[in-house]
Amino acid sequence: MVVRRSHHVLPLQNRAMHTLPAMTADAGHDPLPSWREGALKTNLLAFVERVSDPGSPDFVAPQERIAVFDNDGTLWSEQPMYAQMAFALDRARQLVAERSDLARDPLVAAAAAEDMDTLLGQGMRGLLELVAHTHAGMTTAAFADLARDWLRDARHPQLGVPYTWLVYQPMLELLAYLRAREFSNWIVTGGGGEFVRLFAEEIYGIPPDRVIGSTLLLRYADENGQPTLWREPVVDFINDGDGKPVAVQRAIGRRPIAAFGNSDGDLALLRWTTAGPGRRLGLLLHHDDSEREVAYDRNSRFGRLDRGLELAAQNGWSLVSLRRDWSQVFPASPAKP
Amino acid sequence: MVVRRSHHVLPLQNRAMHTLPAMTADAGHDPLPSWREGALKTNLLAFVERVSDPGSPDFVAPQERIAVFDNDGTLWSEQPMYAQMAFALDRARQLVAERSDLARDPLVAAAAAEDMDTLLGQGMRGLLELVAHTHAGMTTAAFADLARDWLRDARHPQLGVPYTWLVYQPMLELLAYLRAREFSNWIVTGGGGEFVRLFAEEIYGIPPDRVIGSTLLLRYADENGQPTLWREPVVDFINDGDGKPVAVQRAIGRRPIAAFGNSDGDLALLRWTTAGPGRRLGLLLHHDDSEREVAYDRNSRFGRLDRGLELAAQNGWSLVSLRRDWSQVFPASPAKP
Repeated sequence: MVVRRSHHVLPLQNRAMHTLPAMTADAGHDPLPSWREGALKTNLLAFVERVSDPGSPDFVAPQERIAVFDNDGTLWSEQPMYAQMAFALDRARQLVAERSDLARDPLVAAAAAEDMDTLLGQGMRGLLELVAHTHAGMTTAAFADLARDWLRDARHPQLGVPYTWLVYQPMLELLAYLRAREFSNWIVTGGGGEFVRLFAEEIYGIPPDRVIGSTLLLRYADENGQPTLWREPVVDFINDGDGKPVAVQRAIGRRPIAAFGNSDGDLALLRWTTAGPGRRLGLLLHHDDSEREVAYDRNSRFGRLDRGLELAAQNGWSLVSLRRDWSQVFPASPAKP
Repeated sequence: MVVRRSHHVLPLQNRAMHTLPAMTADAGHDPLPSWREGALKTNLLAFVERVSDPGSPDFVAPQERIAVFDNDGTLWSEQPMYAQMAFALDRARQLVAERSDLARDPLVAAAAAEDMDTLLGQGMRGLLELVAHTHAGMTTAAFADLARDWLRDARHPQLGVPYTWLVYQPMLELLAYLRAREFSNWIVTGGGGEFVRLFAEEIYGIPPDRVIGSTLLLRYADENGQPTLWREPVVDFINDGDGKPVAVQRAIGRRPIAAFGNSDGDLALLRWTTAGPGRRLGLLLHHDDSEREVAYDRNSRFGRLDRGLELAAQNGWSLVSLRRDWSQVFPASPAKP
């Protein structure tokens, strides 16, 4: 993998419990202290204030104040690989040792051997097929237990901390600010919805019913007096690219007015959001900070940002430079997983 | 059709705008005035009070207080046919006149001729295929306009009033009571989600993102600089029977604690809900009131209730007799469509 990585260790000395930033309505209070002053921050604040001010011509009723966020690379780090992919690799290694039938499956074998070329050759579908092979054949409750244990025990390969600590402080501030302005915040992720739901409420303040993700086929069975939901090893919906606006319409039934992403997989979501009438906001993170995180865009295996770099200007979307626009990347106190 | 019908005209003299019942926390106030006193009402009130009282051993945190409601036959009338079916028939008649290709389609032709045997021979799938033929090939926005116009202009064949007036007053009271007790109310309907969303917020106080319905395939297209969501003539998901718990998990990600239905298509939803741990509530309406509405159960073409009559007792579900348990069926003032 051609991923540059920070050799800094995150400032995690302070192990105090993480809490979401509290918001006050003080006029003098900066709701986004980790966003550096400049045109980008000014525009971001102006958008939120205008759509939530009843006296403004751009006012939007609270029920229409819908903000949608990609997760991997937008709310938390996705390098050197998606957390859920690390989970699938760990699980593949375990399954290969335990079950000879799965050991013969090419995708599972590739995952157990960390053969990334084979795994990533099929794009998002390949990743989700791997998830289908390694995270199915069990009830939704059993999967939640398995994934919760993994989230608690797994450590980021370079930073040695739980994945749930690698959320972006400026985005936590933005989520809290929007919530205080009566927005509803939704996650629209290419990752598995059931996986992201396990930490989204605690870490982002986003409840399970506002997490829209990729899905495996679920099957209801009422056997031996015990109704059960089974995860079948079949990819049901890929919530990436053109799938994102489709899933948003299906789940929300309203068009968002603000969309936040970081890769070409988010462009349809941003287009759908910002082409609507009235004032809209589209924002793409550009990961250009090799000191404090990882610098990547056109050639990245995860979270590639290529067409988006051109489309941002054409569509009036903000392009956030992590290096320039964020004074801090990760929280000083870790999120509690 | 073997449907007995009321020849009463609804008491709609009072054309004042409909408003959802306001709820107060007064101890002496009856939150369910249209529910007659008796064991059923006592149990219903006790359930809600116990799960919402922080001092009770049955207390449930507000975010887990999820109540799911079927729509046709549970929140509004479904006789002599589902409102959306009446919409599809009207649309089929129009399409047969305008488009010779659709006139040759057996389902559309049957609909235009009101050949109910052919239409209903295929169950819920047949109805949704008809919807796919008559309500697709257009954008989501165009469909919403079409359906809104129909809801405004169409009249119930016997009662001569808009369909949206035929909501059940006791259920409006129940929705308001649950909302006041910090429940989140969700609709889980076999009907089209996009159709029900057009009136659910105004009539039931349930926003679009809490309406889970059957869906056609949506396709995102970004052509000529205009991103668009197209309704394809393909049934994507049938939200009936075993599909209901699946759709609930996908959309909500939490198991409901209370479920309300009226037909065998709701039994999986009630089973899934009430088999969970802690105090749970399952309730089935039994339409046995030929004077004030329509009496139907085992032999009804729409909303058949057969197995449910046995399963109710086995599962500890309440069986509401409309005749016995409701002092009023429809609101005195109509819902404003």
